[in-house]
Amino acid sequence: MIIVARKNITVDQLDYIRERIESLGLRTHISKGVSRTIIGCIGDEARLAGVSLLSIPGVRSVHPVMRPYKLAARDFSADRTSRVQVGNRTFGGPACLVAAGPCSVEGAEMMAETGRAVAGEGASLLRGGAFKPRTSPYSFDGLKEEGLRILERVREETGLPVVTEVLDPRHAELVAGYADMLQIGARNMQNFALLREVGRLRRPVLLKRGMSATLKDLLLAAEYVMSGGNMDVVLCERGIRTFGGEMRNTFDLAAIPWLKLETHLPVIADPSHAGGRRDLVAPLAFAALAAGADGLIVEVHPDPETAASDGDQSLSFAEFADMMRGLQVFAEAAGRSL
Amino acid sequence: MIIVARKNITVDQLDYIRERIESLGLRTHISKGVSRTIIGCIGDEARLAGVSLLSIPGVRSVHPVMRPYKLAARDFSADRTSRVQVGNRTFGGPACLVAAGPCSVEGAEMMAETGRAVAGEGASLLRGGAFKPRTSPYSFDGLKEEGLRILERVREETGLPVVTEVLDPRHAELVAGYADMLQIGARNMQNFALLREVGRLRRPVLLKRGMSATLKDLLLAAEYVMSGGNMDVVLCERGIRTFGGEMRNTFDLAAIPWLKLETHLPVIADPSHAGGRRDLVAPLAFAALAAGADGLIVEVHPDPETAASDGDQSLSFAEFADMMRGLQVFAEAAGRSL
Amino acid sequence: MIIVARKNITVDQLDYIRERIESLGLRTHISKGVSRTIIGCIGDEARLAGVSLLSIPGVRSVHPVMRPYKLAARDFSADRTSRVQVGNRTFGGPACLVAAGPCSVEGAEMMAETGRAVAGEGASLLRGGAFKPRTSPYSFDGLKEEGLRILERVREETGLPVVTEVLDPRHAELVAGYADMLQIGARNMQNFALLREVGRLRRPVLLKRGMSATLKDLLLAAEYVMSGGNMDVVLCERGIRTFGGEMRNTFDLAAIPWLKLETHLPVIADPSHAGGRRDLVAPLAFAALAAGADGLIVEVHPDPETAASDGDQSLSFAEFADMMRGLQVFAEAAGRSL
Amino acid sequence: MIIVARKNITVDQLDYIRERIESLGLRTHISKGVSRTIIGCIGDEARLAGVSLLSIPGVRSVHPVMRPYKLAARDFSADRTSRVQVGNRTFGGPACLVAAGPCSVEGAEMMAETGRAVAGEGASLLRGGAFKPRTSPYSFDGLKEEGLRILERVREETGLPVVTEVLDPRHAELVAGYADMLQIGARNMQNFALLREVGRLRRPVLLKRGMSATLKDLLLAAEYVMSGGNMDVVLCERGIRTFGGEMRNTFDLAAIPWLKLETHLPVIADPSHAGGRRDLVAPLAFAALAAGADGLIVEVHPDPETAASDGDQSLSFAEFADMMRGLQVFAEAAGRSL
Repeated sequence: MIIVARKNITVDQLDYIRERIESLGLRTHISKGVSRTIIGCIGDEARLAGVSLLSIPGVRSVHPVMRPYKLAARDFSADRTSRVQVGNRTFGGPACLVAAGPCSVEGAEMMAETGRAVAGEGASLLRGGAFKPRTSPYSFDGLKEEGLRILERVREETGLPVVTEVLDPRHAELVAGYADMLQIGARNMQNFALLREVGRLRRPVLLKRGMSATLKDLLLAAEYVMSGGNMDVVLCERGIRTFGGEMRNTFDLAAIPWLKLETHLPVIADPSHAGGRRDLVAPLAFAALAAGADGLIVEVHPDPETAASDGDQSLSFAEFADMMRGLQVFAEAAGRSL
Repeated sequence: MIIVARKNITVDQLDYIRERIESLGLRTHISKGVSRTIIGCIGDEARLAGVSLLSIPGVRSVHPVMRPYKLAARDFSADRTSRVQVGNRTFGGPACLVAAGPCSVEGAEMMAETGRAVAGEGASLLRGGAFKPRTSPYSFDGLKEEGLRILERVREETGLPVVTEVLDPRHAELVAGYADMLQIGARNMQNFALLREVGRLRRPVLLKRGMSATLKDLLLAAEYVMSGGNMDVVLCERGIRTFGGEMRNTFDLAAIPWLKLETHLPVIADPSHAGGRRDLVAPLAFAALAAGADGLIVEVHPDPETAASDGDQSLSFAEFADMMRGLQVFAEAAGRSL
Repeated sequence: MIIVARKNITVDQLDYIRERIESLGLRTHISKGVSRTIIGCIGDEARLAGVSLLSIPGVRSVHPVMRPYKLAARDFSADRTSRVQVGNRTFGGPACLVAAGPCSVEGAEMMAETGRAVAGEGASLLRGGAFKPRTSPYSFDGLKEEGLRILERVREETGLPVVTEVLDPRHAELVAGYADMLQIGARNMQNFALLREVGRLRRPVLLKRGMSATLKDLLLAAEYVMSGGNMDVVLCERGIRTFGGEMRNTFDLAAIPWLKLETHLPVIADPSHAGGRRDLVAPLAFAALAAGADGLIVEVHPDPETAASDGDQSLSFAEFADMMRGLQVFAEAAGRSL
Repeated sequence: MIIVARKNITVDQLDYIRERIESLGLRTHISKGVSRTIIGCIGDEARLAGVSLLSIPGVRSVHPVMRPYKLAARDFSADRTSRVQVGNRTFGGPACLVAAGPCSVEGAEMMAETGRAVAGEGASLLRGGAFKPRTSPYSFDGLKEEGLRILERVREETGLPVVTEVLDPRHAELVAGYADMLQIGARNMQNFALLREVGRLRRPVLLKRGMSATLKDLLLAAEYVMSGGNMDVVLCERGIRTFGGEMRNTFDLAAIPWLKLETHLPVIADPSHAGGRRDLVAPLAFAALAAGADGLIVEVHPDPETAASDGDQSLSFAEFADMMRGLQVFAEAAGRSL
């Protein structure tokens, strides 16, 4: 931590600051310049977390120099990239994994049909929401446990591991009883009760970035899960909320290489939510792979027009097949397989 | 709902759209222009909620014309402003209410001291967090039930009703057993499990706007609570996340008069989080009242420098007293009392 | 400037950094901590402006500690608030000044009518655009010099000094020949050729904040004008562009008190552009005064419905009169006059 | 244009609206629903541009249905993609073009050295700023005409056409006398005087998206240039300003495929400004090509550490060579050449 003093700081104020920092177990180093005095705080910055340094008379600004996350930081993993096993698939290895399926599990038949179709085109996991977060209380919010049972049956038929969302800490164990991977959605990225709960379970977690979360916020949310003992976290960029009105969200593609430099956790992208439009899904998916993503999560529906949710951004089976063909080429260009 | 057709729509496509809309129980009205065809959908727009109109061939854009919230809409209340009773105080009446207290309940003594101080300066409610949402898993997250018991004792001593945050649906009843008003924090504004839970309880709710929530999102979150039967919701503008880096958040002051035109629910502001700096609290508080706010929630601490959280934006007792004196003048200018 | 070194910095890299900084005429101060090394740079930070410190091997992050503006900084003015004289009116003194008039000068009659109406209600200056920036090349872009002549005649009749926009450095002298105050619009806040040009003239400048300008950017834009020798700059908050879709812009009210703490220049607000809706103008105007603004600029039109531009946010004469009555009360509450 | 009436609109108000629209030469079509009345306006929407419909009593909301740009719209070009010739290179054809060079022209030698290096690695154009927009008036702002002369000499030596920025309408002809392509920078995207000026010249224009410009704003800025008769416009996505603090800008990658669907103009990306960090340039460049970009503009410097501007995001020659090798593979994957 570096503290910049106000121009007119007094000797007493400076002494007070020094004593305060040292009383917390850090050492200080004072540099007096012509127009500024700087107090360097040497030692464990975490001890200053609960201290309002800006409130101390004479302090003008405060600059943290340590990363606030530890388990999620790249340095933490000896080989710099963690592998997260989900059923018989591995995130973070040579293959880019594609999770595909409808936004919501709407019924047994459409799920089975979709599972067969996406498995046939090379998807690695099956997605589908049984518990759905909806902006309006009047929208369809999922089939709940019946939806989970449907997902389980489709996994048995297709062999695809299942990823599905959990919304409520009270349902975490229930969902973990059926799913291979627990999804934490964008709106719940800072639902700390839920993060702690999935941190206690031994199921891999797909953690989606919140709409207005910085990348540091995302890594701290991962840290919540990891500090509970569950190290199997995969991060997902899915678009952020900005002024841009033409698309549903702004796909922050640069988050992918930034995260790959900053954390050892696998990083995937959700081109369906990022663009919000079916005709943008394939180009965004290609770009994500080119930028280094370890995989994708994509919405696919047997009949997008009648989808109970997110139909505008869901691919038909034919569109998904097209995208997978293109993806194959870009995965190879990136030195990966699908 | 208005549907704008693509330039090259065929007669068959147009027929299909008309039949689809009518099969859902709405009537259609088609206007053919020189360069565009428009399909007006007449009837209950809610029936179209689960239909992906953009996926139908020939559709270019879709324009909803109804508000998605009903109970929260201004029209819903005969006299256009609801009053929300919290203990012996009333939000939405002639008085502007000020809730004041520390970010976190840190102990019995500091809470009692703060309660007496803010009551003495004219605060109407006591705030203080017993369960704290923290971006980092390593930060202090509150005294939990012990904190609630402390709040209860300070209410007994000072007579101030207590508002405190609930984070986890599993704690909602516990918190409601101690608090007069349940706060839903910004990070939980779209925690739908929690919203449904407080909708079941009979305790007034202080609903803070999410960092990237539109005002429609905020009203839909209120609708979640209200559709559960709990109509006592007070909305709170506390700043949104934008590019502006100089302050912690961007205080969206215009949300206050916009909401007053759009909903019957009382609206208050949180100048502490909005500015994130102690020296901005008073001017933002004055402005909120001038813009029509029904009250404020303000962080006050006996010794901001040592506060366990949010010290940079907490007022000392003397600063709070100053602010209250200024507020008195602006409340009168706005035709209100404190 | 404070330089934080990478964990694995070598002794040679550290020596190189030290020599590099010292070769630029600054002194260095090195603090070695357990897990970080910090290099403090003591002296004139401006000398480092052209140096890419992040490119030097071993550097992890760089933290400037000096403000990049000097003339605009609060410290620069002995009495901490500058007064800017425009005709016979003074920004930054005890009175809050209200500039009022139509978005565009549409003709002699409507301008004269508006001038008389706003003067009668207590406006201090007349606004009106003769050169108009328009997002579309097909929109009405002003009466140009004819508009300036009309403004001049209305000034003669009403005694109100005139503020009008200049868009093109080639027109700066022409506009200055007619206007009492030159407005730089939001889209031109970083049109540096234009800023330099008005910096050469001796006419007060009304500098509007750009839609995505930080407050530092705004002060640096003021610095451009002032470094040319023209110290008479008034800053204007007019809303920024954020995700919020319900209003035209997001009124960053907190910019007003932040700027009052950071600069000696007068600060006003534009509630018409900030809200983009007629029924929001008065509450935003009241709030701006309560937050410490030195004045307002407001759009008024004899018949908003037929206005050539910005009709949705223009007040009628009756609405302006109403607003001025309310403003009187809030100006008094703020210890100011109108 | 579709007008939605207020719930309580009177018959007289409705008649008035109908007459008003028809007096402007459009036809109307009124649909009365149970809870809403809709007025469709049929005909040339542009005639309503100067009318404040929201000001008419009884109007609740207004929905434009036509695109505001014509020349830039995809429909305008028979074969859906325009080719823009710059010297002996073509944007919008099968090859992806890479413009490379330093942020600023700092001297003859460094420019010649850079020109040879980037030409040797397969760059198609040479970039370099002679007139530089700088946030602070105290920063280096370019060598001006001397810089242009240097660029001209390097073109002679290397054969690379030159793209360079123009800031001031008074310099447009001067710059066009030296450059093969005129760059309009992000801060000048809505400098309408400048856009009109380059619209008069017969030099291709590289139009960079403004930091807070929507994609519609960008296309309207292109429309300014094109409506002056200069149809040779290439658009450039270079990152927008959002809350994300970890990178200099937020690279809005989805803008690339969105624009390719909406306009016939070529679209390129600037990964240097978008990420603001050297180690992000290559992944962002790969992603841009994968998403369909027609080219790139990249900052390269012989010694980034000593660059007069933008050193943190400039590639060294070796890094540029590496990027070009990777780019080759992704261009092929995209079915393009370099």
